Amino acid sequence: MARADGWLCHALSVDYGQRHRAELDAAARVARALGAVEHRVARVDLGVFGGSALTDPAIAVPRAPSAGIPVTYVPARNTIFLALALAHAEVVAADAIFTGVNAVDYSGYPDCRPEFMAAFERLANLATKRAVEGAPIAIEAPIVRLSKAEIVRRGRELGVDYALTVSCYDADAAGRACGECDACRLRREGFAAAGLADPTRYRASR
Amino acid sequence: MARADGWLCHALSVDYGQRHRAELDAAARVARALGAVEHRVARVDLGVFGGSALTDPAIAVPRAPSAGIPVTYVPARNTIFLALALAHAEVVAADAIFTGVNAVDYSGYPDCRPEFMAAFERLANLATKRAVEGAPIAIEAPIVRLSKAEIVRRGRELGVDYALTVSCYDADAAGRACGECDACRLRREGFAAAGLADPTRYRASR
Repeated sequence: MARADGWLCHALSVDYGQRHRAELDAAARVARALGAVEHRVARVDLGVFGGSALTDPAIAVPRAPSAGIPVTYVPARNTIFLALALAHAEVVAADAIFTGVNAVDYSGYPDCRPEFMAAFERLANLATKRAVEGAPIAIEAPIVRLSKAEIVRRGRELGVDYALTVSCYDADAAGRACGECDACRLRREGFAAAGLADPTRYRASR
Repeated sequence: MARADGWLCHALSVDYGQRHRAELDAAARVARALGAVEHRVARVDLGVFGGSALTDPAIAVPRAPSAGIPVTYVPARNTIFLALALAHAEVVAADAIFTGVNAVDYSGYPDCRPEFMAAFERLANLATKRAVEGAPIAIEAPIVRLSKAEIVRRGRELGVDYALTVSCYDADAAGRACGECDACRLRREGFAAAGLADPTRYRASR
């Protein structure tokens, strides 16, 4: 969506000690396929804090929806991601940071809400040399208010090959999805609601 | 200052690809000496972005004061540090984050100003599961408005052994200071203005 609006895109992924590297591999494929200027991977070890099924091998990924904010919540994850993106943005002199967070079908994460994004934008414009010297930065979350079905349709219109993408919290090394976690469930429901075929590669065990 | 106010302190240092490990070694010594509950080191590779004398070996640390924001500025550094501290704070159920930033004798860094700290506090209270479930977090910067002389005196009153500490941007592996960078200059002027002996270990080359 950023590229369709005419932006030159510098892609950033974060290797934060997540359970699998499949989404990092997928991000590199997608960045290439969509014509990003570059794709950097920033490393930060969130395992030192623990407290999440996504960074602590001792906490299992749930196979069924749960009440409240689930154990897949990673403390302060989007704050950390956006802070790293802010460093990247300043170094490449970017005027906006685009993030794919979503608050509609989301899993109850507080740092996926529009008011969080607005607060980060305010912070970012006080934080950097570039901003205080007169080049403000915008935080854009173009899919934050879309349903998963709307997201799937919009991506299809823009030519996204969803076979390149991975959403699963617990994908295997080959990028095959578990089919059972919250992320898999929401993605599958999105394709169904959009009336489109689901090209996701699932593990045989499903 | 936090401990003197009765807080149990969980110390956090960030290994961000800085030029030397002397300040990380010093932080561990200080945390032990001052009775921290724990001392964690979070690793994040800011070298992937470059753009600073503190993370890019190709950019030299200045030996004289410069106009404007200096090349020792690390893009978004305090945003990243506070984001990591927010993750730490949530996992240990902390009610406040204390940071030692200083806006008086500071080197022109935008992310050392009180308005930046206030914006981060507002963000933090929208960002985490713990905050949205009713346990707000405070961002405390107790020395942000103190002069270096006032900081030195306050530490001395509290029993800080400054021989344990390192401020230099370019310390050697043994923790000896260069005596010439901005951080050394401000520290030395602070001891002089406070009328206290400077216990800093300087390299012989000075």
